[in-house]
Amino acid sequence: METRLLLLLGLCGLGRAANTTLPRPPNLVLLLMDDMGWGDLGVFGQPSKETPNIDQMAAEGMLFPSFYTANPLCSPSRAALLTGRLPIRNGFYTTNAHARNAYTPQVITGGIPDSELLLPELLKKTGYVNKIVGKWHLGHRPEFHPLRHGFDEWFGSPNCHFGPYDNKAAPNIPFYRDWEMIGRYYEDVKIDHKTGEANLTQMYLQEALDFISTQHASQQPFFLYWAIDATHAPVYASREFLGTSQRGLYGDAVREIDDSIGKILSRLQKLGISNNTFVFFTSDNGAALVSGPDQAGSNGPFLCGKQTTFEGGMREPAIAWWPGHVPAGQVSHQLASVMDLFTTSLALAGLQPPSDRQIDGIDLSPVILQGKLIDRPIFYYRGNEMMAIRVGPYKAHYWTWSNSWEQFSQGIDFCPGQNVSGVTTHDQEEHSKLPLLFHLGKDPGEKYPISFSSAEYQSVIERISPIVEQHKETLLPGQPQLNVCDKAVMNWAPPGCEKIGKCLKPPSPNPHKCFWPH
Amino acid sequence: METRLLLLLGLCGLGRAANTTLPRPPNLVLLLMDDMGWGDLGVFGQPSKETPNIDQMAAEGMLFPSFYTANPLCSPSRAALLTGRLPIRNGFYTTNAHARNAYTPQVITGGIPDSELLLPELLKKTGYVNKIVGKWHLGHRPEFHPLRHGFDEWFGSPNCHFGPYDNKAAPNIPFYRDWEMIGRYYEDVKIDHKTGEANLTQMYLQEALDFISTQHASQQPFFLYWAIDATHAPVYASREFLGTSQRGLYGDAVREIDDSIGKILSRLQKLGISNNTFVFFTSDNGAALVSGPDQAGSNGPFLCGKQTTFEGGMREPAIAWWPGHVPAGQVSHQLASVMDLFTTSLALAGLQPPSDRQIDGIDLSPVILQGKLIDRPIFYYRGNEMMAIRVGPYKAHYWTWSNSWEQFSQGIDFCPGQNVSGVTTHDQEEHSKLPLLFHLGKDPGEKYPISFSSAEYQSVIERISPIVEQHKETLLPGQPQLNVCDKAVMNWAPPGCEKIGKCLKPPSPNPHKCFWPH
Ligand SMILES: [Ca+2]
Ligand SMILES: [Ca+2]
Repeated sequence: METRLLLLLGLCGLGRAANTTLPRPPNLVLLLMDDMGWGDLGVFGQPSKETPNIDQMAAEGMLFPSFYTANPLCSPSRAALLTGRLPIRNGFYTTNAHARNAYTPQVITGGIPDSELLLPELLKKTGYVNKIVGKWHLGHRPEFHPLRHGFDEWFGSPNCHFGPYDNKAAPNIPFYRDWEMIGRYYEDVKIDHKTGEANLTQMYLQEALDFISTQHASQQPFFLYWAIDATHAPVYASREFLGTSQRGLYGDAVREIDDSIGKILSRLQKLGISNNTFVFFTSDNGAALVSGPDQAGSNGPFLCGKQTTFEGGMREPAIAWWPGHVPAGQVSHQLASVMDLFTTSLALAGLQPPSDRQIDGIDLSPVILQGKLIDRPIFYYRGNEMMAIRVGPYKAHYWTWSNSWEQFSQGIDFCPGQNVSGVTTHDQEEHSKLPLLFHLGKDPGEKYPISFSSAEYQSVIERISPIVEQHKETLLPGQPQLNVCDKAVMNWAPPGCEKIGKCLKPPSPNPHKCFWPH
Repeated sequence: METRLLLLLGLCGLGRAANTTLPRPPNLVLLLMDDMGWGDLGVFGQPSKETPNIDQMAAEGMLFPSFYTANPLCSPSRAALLTGRLPIRNGFYTTNAHARNAYTPQVITGGIPDSELLLPELLKKTGYVNKIVGKWHLGHRPEFHPLRHGFDEWFGSPNCHFGPYDNKAAPNIPFYRDWEMIGRYYEDVKIDHKTGEANLTQMYLQEALDFISTQHASQQPFFLYWAIDATHAPVYASREFLGTSQRGLYGDAVREIDDSIGKILSRLQKLGISNNTFVFFTSDNGAALVSGPDQAGSNGPFLCGKQTTFEGGMREPAIAWWPGHVPAGQVSHQLASVMDLFTTSLALAGLQPPSDRQIDGIDLSPVILQGKLIDRPIFYYRGNEMMAIRVGPYKAHYWTWSNSWEQFSQGIDFCPGQNVSGVTTHDQEEHSKLPLLFHLGKDPGEKYPISFSSAEYQSVIERISPIVEQHKETLLPGQPQLNVCDKAVMNWAPPGCEKIGKCLKPPSPNPHKCFWPH
């Protein structure tokens, strides 16, 4: 313990030094996985142990076993990360129906509002060059373009790499370089549906390495948002990695990502900038068990997966890495969130978060640099509803829902092989008067609800209730962005389409309420 | 890869040297946990990450993510470990009913037959001094005493630390030093039922340390079988560790064990004998989820727990440690078994396994010392039935059963929160004609059976069937030892009872068929 204390004191010194004597604020690299589960890393117990580079990153840095997303779906999770705010505040939710997950498919009319301040916008003011590599997912209409929201460069796509795959009834998803579409998925950017072969991760890796080297040469601080998507169905890997995993195609994708992350960290080290680059690894939501076993990862010991507010939907693998600043081999049990990456990045850049709005993310730098623990709740939202809250080791469910009986009867199962009576419900069940309570330390799998009549239950609920009340009373929901869909707003003719002859003719506008079944 | 190859070649040399030039065969230390689950170690993904010493042991040695017990219950597992033979061969099973787990409670008349050759018996011939610390569980009548089966010293108990706790209707469980009882549980050897406080792990630790130091001083090779039981319900920890875990009492017990293992390894290092001592860590069966969450561990991503032949019942945490011989930081995906510890220990001691009987354990020394992989099946037995088999990444269930509807309706649940339709069955269901097949690489949780009509199914079953047929055709079951119970054989008056005034009068003999509900 004494050694540890000394270490921390030493680090505290280093942390201060970073703010005062370093030539410039640290570079920021955010490695954001797509649908990768907590249980997909060797360091979090994947039996195949096929992530040596990410495990090494953890061994050299700080592991967060209790790190959460703000929503169990891509778009709202990413909107929360980049704004530091819950989707209910930044508008990435729907009011079309109660407690429904919504995202930004091709037909969505909404996207990230201009009124929201994104991390790259703020970093830009202090001289950062910002690049997004990969999936944006905060809206695809011109006003939502990432280069209109603080990024300087983009190589990737506004949507998921879904179909239609044939460009007939609807346009294939576009792929951008900066302001303009340079091709479309399944036409110019190939993913072989039968074999799962695609070179995309290699392309994303090359973009990351080039950007790092270029920014290093130009001596400007940079923010790299590496939002790759090989682990999102349809899962893909390049030929070199196909068939190399014990876990099938999904594992191949993970192995390629692991290899790429090794190369990114190694590039930082070779350039001699690892001690001035803060790197964070996490994922946007839990593994999509509904697509398992071939197209889904693992949520380890946790309950259910993507789309749900059980631990499997929202607990994420997370690692902070910053040699010389983050001590090696640490584990922090801080309750942390993707939204904290907003506030923490600002703090490392020497910036304050906006004071004119509620920010949900906290500054983790005392946690990461000084080993402190900060008391704070975690809210589990699904659409417009706060489904659950975590305070300390306790999680209280105010609403439970896996998915509807109708969807379930069609074979859509967010909790395959799992069934906790009264918990993984197929009706939306309200428990506000008597929340279901779990001790996640003893029971990380949410399988043993604490008895309503126990003294433990009484005292914990007394502690949690005022936090929930205060949250709800002061909550100012943003204008919902994911209510209206329209086939006319699809990617028929994105900027740059003329140059490559990929413009299509949109149908007449026909705005309507989006249907969100989950 | 080249570095690794060189390492392995170097080790290969070291391995040979051990047999030819070392002054004596290596000491053997087997750290056997009781009901500890695969998912209880940080290195296997326990979110609390509270096993720094065991994780360090793994980092310095070789981890086995696919290590199995021979039976999902204490007694047969331990009989298999010490004989290198499946319980169906060594007699540690029952024929009272089909596919029932059986063990050695106080009323059991049977135990380890004299005809079985135990590891310490064989090691003794080449000069080893053998000590068992902790739970024996191979029978408690005089003829089954561990000192009659090759051990030189014993400090522990023949049975689990169950009740009756009051010594009225039945005697409390005895506690032995070598040949004689020195006290009884809940009388002389205290476990506080309300707080879970007990000093037993500290006592077992001290015995281990003393034995190691004494044997080192006497320059004789030793075998230490450290069969502790703090993680078996009723779970216990000493005052220093009570309340220190995020996981409650169970976690306190794990933390104390972890601390003890750190001290044992440290003692070996301080004495300078770590490079001549082969240490292996594992557990006797999966976590007893039926006792969760307060009195049970975690099986990580695996299905069900103790008593079942799903992965949660039989996959065990396992680590080999031998500085200078086992390279650091290795992961072996060898399919391995507790029975291999018999054969491997003999090999390291320069001995051949008995040739007059079928031995199921294989010699893992080429795996551990040279990184080789050996093709072999894993058989999953429950009582007298082969329930399942694993070949490569595939597991085929020939029988499925969790427990009976009758037991289940009384709240006894071996798969809490888990329910895989047609797999976690409450009737004993035979699938011999069309085994249920899983790919454990893609689907470690046994949640997605492979379609019977797929080409994959056909080709895998064609590979597995002859292995099963050959196994069944050549199987010579041993005389079942766990069929007959009798209150008269309880620990009324164990050897030494007179000296401490703890003799009780047994009732008249009344042998009857034991009832095994699971
Ligand atoms: Ca996602
Ligand atoms: Ca056991």
